[in-house]
Amino acid sequence: MSLDGTYDDANIFALILQGKIPSMKLYEDDTTFAFLDIMPQTRGHALVISKWSKARNLLEIEDEALAQVMATTKKVATAIRKALNPDGIQIAQFNGAPAGQTIFHLHVHILPRWEGDPKGFAAHGAGAMADKDALQVLAEEIRAQF
Amino acid sequence: MSLDGTYDDANIFALILQGKIPSMKLYEDDTTFAFLDIMPQTRGHALVISKWSKARNLLEIEDEALAQVMATTKKVATAIRKALNPDGIQIAQFNGAPAGQTIFHLHVHILPRWEGDPKGFAAHGAGAMADKDALQVLAEEIRAQF
Repeated sequence: MSLDGTYDDANIFALILQGKIPSMKLYEDDTTFAFLDIMPQTRGHALVISKWSKARNLLEIEDEALAQVMATTKKVATAIRKALNPDGIQIAQFNGAPAGQTIFHLHVHILPRWEGDPKGFAAHGAGAMADKDALQVLAEEIRAQF
Repeated sequence: MSLDGTYDDANIFALILQGKIPSMKLYEDDTTFAFLDIMPQTRGHALVISKWSKARNLLEIEDEALAQVMATTKKVATAIRKALNPDGIQIAQFNGAPAGQTIFHLHVHILPRWEGDPKGFAAHGAGAMADKDALQVLAEEIRAQF
């Protein structure tokens, strides 16, 4: 999907927000929601989304929703740092399929990195499905830091 | 440099803001500054920084400064799209050397992408120095879109 198009109310992240499919929640407030990526590219790979904006990408999002998503991104990155003690943290946000976007509800990736890790991103969804129980334990470790 | 440390007032982006070294400016307002990366990883590779925050990284930045930087990131991405018509746009922000950060003044990368381009990032500064005249022409093309 290119940068043009319309928001699909049945995209996976919309379904998570509607409670129709489960997610590994890390944090939630009135306007934003953060959860673990179930196909993580690094330990603690998290995603942050707006609960109210129907923006597919950066070009569409309201400044207010963007500010909310980024404030939560900072908050979750801080909790991940406390829980997992990474050496660095990458933030990434992809717009359009040719840029690596696969789910068309704006989302910010948080990727903890350790010395010697590769620094590049694979396309979203390129990783293997993580073990659900291990992911649940990890989510609890991070949630304990808020 | 790890995620810990102190802000260096003589980092390259601080010197750009102080007018001590030149830059290929794309946009400026009261709180933010955007310019072309002189070692671009893609045509139109731009950077956005806060003019007042002395945050080295996401974990340190004030929510207000972060919101300002992101609103400008959206604005500059929109202008780049109009000027260069990329198929997608990647946003990236690196925290700590092990995550690819090389300049310790928080900055957001804007990377236009075209079909068939690689989607990964190299470490900051891994690209070749761009031709200054070509970069100046490109900056003018983008500035014309604001």
